[in-house]
Amino acid sequence: MSVKAFAVIAGIGSGTGTWLARRFAKAYPVALLARNPESYEALVKEINSDGGRAIGISADVSSEASVKSAFKTIAQEYNDAPCAAAIYNASGGFVKKPFLETRVEDLGKGWTVTVKGALFFSQATIPLMLKHAEDDSAQYPPTIIFTGATASVKANAQMSSFAAPKWALRAMSTSLAKEFAPKGVHVVHTVIDGVIDIPKSQDMLKDMPWNARIGPEDIAKTYWDLHTQSRRAFTNEVDIRPMLEKW
Amino acid sequence: MSVKAFAVIAGIGSGTGTWLARRFAKAYPVALLARNPESYEALVKEINSDGGRAIGISADVSSEASVKSAFKTIAQEYNDAPCAAAIYNASGGFVKKPFLETRVEDLGKGWTVTVKGALFFSQATIPLMLKHAEDDSAQYPPTIIFTGATASVKANAQMSSFAAPKWALRAMSTSLAKEFAPKGVHVVHTVIDGVIDIPKSQDMLKDMPWNARIGPEDIAKTYWDLHTQSRRAFTNEVDIRPMLEKW
Amino acid sequence: MSVKAFAVIAGIGSGTGTWLARRFAKAYPVALLARNPESYEALVKEINSDGGRAIGISADVSSEASVKSAFKTIAQEYNDAPCAAAIYNASGGFVKKPFLETRVEDLGKGWTVTVKGALFFSQATIPLMLKHAEDDSAQYPPTIIFTGATASVKANAQMSSFAAPKWALRAMSTSLAKEFAPKGVHVVHTVIDGVIDIPKSQDMLKDMPWNARIGPEDIAKTYWDLHTQSRRAFTNEVDIRPMLEKW
Amino acid sequence: MSVKAFAVIAGIGSGTGTWLARRFAKAYPVALLARNPESYEALVKEINSDGGRAIGISADVSSEASVKSAFKTIAQEYNDAPCAAAIYNASGGFVKKPFLETRVEDLGKGWTVTVKGALFFSQATIPLMLKHAEDDSAQYPPTIIFTGATASVKANAQMSSFAAPKWALRAMSTSLAKEFAPKGVHVVHTVIDGVIDIPKSQDMLKDMPWNARIGPEDIAKTYWDLHTQSRRAFTNEVDIRPMLEKW
Repeated sequence: MSVKAFAVIAGIGSGTGTWLARRFAKAYPVALLARNPESYEALVKEINSDGGRAIGISADVSSEASVKSAFKTIAQEYNDAPCAAAIYNASGGFVKKPFLETRVEDLGKGWTVTVKGALFFSQATIPLMLKHAEDDSAQYPPTIIFTGATASVKANAQMSSFAAPKWALRAMSTSLAKEFAPKGVHVVHTVIDGVIDIPKSQDMLKDMPWNARIGPEDIAKTYWDLHTQSRRAFTNEVDIRPMLEKW
Repeated sequence: MSVKAFAVIAGIGSGTGTWLARRFAKAYPVALLARNPESYEALVKEINSDGGRAIGISADVSSEASVKSAFKTIAQEYNDAPCAAAIYNASGGFVKKPFLETRVEDLGKGWTVTVKGALFFSQATIPLMLKHAEDDSAQYPPTIIFTGATASVKANAQMSSFAAPKWALRAMSTSLAKEFAPKGVHVVHTVIDGVIDIPKSQDMLKDMPWNARIGPEDIAKTYWDLHTQSRRAFTNEVDIRPMLEKW
Repeated sequence: MSVKAFAVIAGIGSGTGTWLARRFAKAYPVALLARNPESYEALVKEINSDGGRAIGISADVSSEASVKSAFKTIAQEYNDAPCAAAIYNASGGFVKKPFLETRVEDLGKGWTVTVKGALFFSQATIPLMLKHAEDDSAQYPPTIIFTGATASVKANAQMSSFAAPKWALRAMSTSLAKEFAPKGVHVVHTVIDGVIDIPKSQDMLKDMPWNARIGPEDIAKTYWDLHTQSRRAFTNEVDIRPMLEKW
Repeated sequence: MSVKAFAVIAGIGSGTGTWLARRFAKAYPVALLARNPESYEALVKEINSDGGRAIGISADVSSEASVKSAFKTIAQEYNDAPCAAAIYNASGGFVKKPFLETRVEDLGKGWTVTVKGALFFSQATIPLMLKHAEDDSAQYPPTIIFTGATASVKANAQMSSFAAPKWALRAMSTSLAKEFAPKGVHVVHTVIDGVIDIPKSQDMLKDMPWNARIGPEDIAKTYWDLHTQSRRAFTNEVDIRPMLEKW
């Protein structure tokens, strides 16, 4: 079956990625990237058996060669289709540490996944989105969304290793928005301000009421709403927080 | 017919208000406020004949008595229903003037409509939204949206009379978001960054391509998308601009 | 004795104003504005007996007529001298109140003093600063400084009546900086982020260590440092906080 | 001669560093770091013959070993003195390039010098500043200043490789300010918004009037003013621009 356009999501293992994949799979064949196949195998099966179409690809977003290889596989599987939506949901992991105990590796991990990975992912997807932007029959403008966090706009004590790469990613997203909007590509940065209600956060969440937690399915709704904006109304940044969040 | 909940929009004459009214009227009976009945008469007729329900009320948002009187009328017409959505789309009008020629009246006009009006409108609607927030059968959290502009986040030369009230409104929206989110009310400020494609802007628009203009129907889509966010994913600010906007 | 240039400070009663007056009086004859003569009488006497030169003028900054009258007095006393430095240190007073109990008067008080007063003060001083900017023998560029607060950049719950005017003032300062820097006038906005160690704050301060409080004499040092910047290095905003402030 | 406290400046070759060194050398023995000895040799001679005290050290700030070795030399030369002031003025160099032509090396260069270098420099200096903070006879609180640029707060099209590291540095500075202010260390980030009037910018400057350029000696004045703030009035960020800058 020929694919008209696909969606790609990097960072499937996070819990949020699962819901993003389900949402975008209602409209597009999806390609799901994660380092570990266990992160996507059940989800690929679920989407394919629910009438959608999904492929999973093991990839290390911090390696340019690995990202290139993943997009070669996508091109083969999805017959060189253009890209309708790309979501960069990978992150170097939370770090909080007294500054004088910080090692360059702490900072480097965030840099590698959050920033370098975003560079490789964007360079692989944007050309495929420029192609989609020229397709007058496309329903929505091609959209690339970068997932940020509270630390993308705040930099609290002991948080420089986490915040510095997040601020850098926000800068990159802003710069891309200005460069590619005139060519029809919609670029968005999100500030996910709170704890997401996903399995790996259960320890942190156990005393938090349901409405102090961000719903991953609700993040997916907002990402879809952003994707379906017209070229006459691009949103380039949104914040997302649960009703009980202090900010 | 009993009304379960209504939506109210202040500032219908602007062009954007028309599209907001059409969108929200698909889901709720709407109350449309404008100083001049000519601003809403045709629209009220259109909505009512299309199967929706609308009332128009002549009101001066800068007068507390007038706002109170308008909400008394709404209570009568819509049987004391709670408020599901409220949009403050009124504005004191664009002013650009050398500072030394600025009169206190230039500044005062923006203050009166943009800030005082928002105070009166919020005080009238928030109690009706708190009531809606307690209704477990409500589909979406009650939402109040304040329409801002480029000048809400920038303050260029000769623009203090326009920007000062807009910055003040953004402060008010932020403060309300923090006070009322824990009670289930969703408060949003929007930065409409560009020229909206509405009749009254035609002079300014005549040399601008379609995709350098913001679509008012696209603003309405985004406002609706914001209203339908869950209590586990409130967005408190969005920017909206056309693909060809420089920023 | 002929006056080459003078400095003017509005808002002397606040405690900080006293230190600002002392600092600027080392370099310029000063004019001190306060509603109540008791706010400046002892200070005027002190400065004049310490070898400086000071006049006090009773003025209501929220009244255009009163501000004009004050500057007429200054012109007479200081022989139509240009203005080297102007500090707007007046404020409508702190307000924190549940939004639904807020009255338009709560908001209006801040608006009147913080924003309208700044307009009148700026319109009175900027022409006298443009004159100073043309004087090649002037040692420093003419400088107008607006005193802001934490609430100039944050808008917490229940703070809209305080924050809205402060955000508006910040917008005005930014706009003035952009309009008048090219003409040689240096415009600055300060974010005083913390409690100032002045007599009227003693209740709030009693359990706070000395280094959790902002020193009013230290604010004066920074204002003077800003005034003495050259036309090749204007700072348009500074934050000021004590070492123990959380932010 | 025993040294009570020293100042250290990284990034001497830039032109601004020269003026920073001259200014701080009026008060402290200085240590000047640059990759290339040619960058500091004449300056070290000048300061020493003008009655100041200076040492130059060849160091690569992007190498942890090189930074450690430099501070070992400083400790030997300046008898393990505490550090009164540290200025991180190094930068990865300006890059502007279409995003799809950007190489990971373009981004990496900024990351290495601007962010990793700042980490190494901060980790070497902060312990020596904590020591100085405990010295009650010290005249001014120890101060570390990071030099940023327009791109620290803006991220224009084609500028992601330059802006991303600058935003990251601003995050790091903010985080350090919050962690170390309570321990008496003053941390500042500066936004140098314009072209500095230094030899290496002459091509860019040739059609710009003198007051459209930032004076490097004026940057030095502001850095000194920041250093001399008391613990009751820390400024954590300043912007600096010439009077003719558009912003």
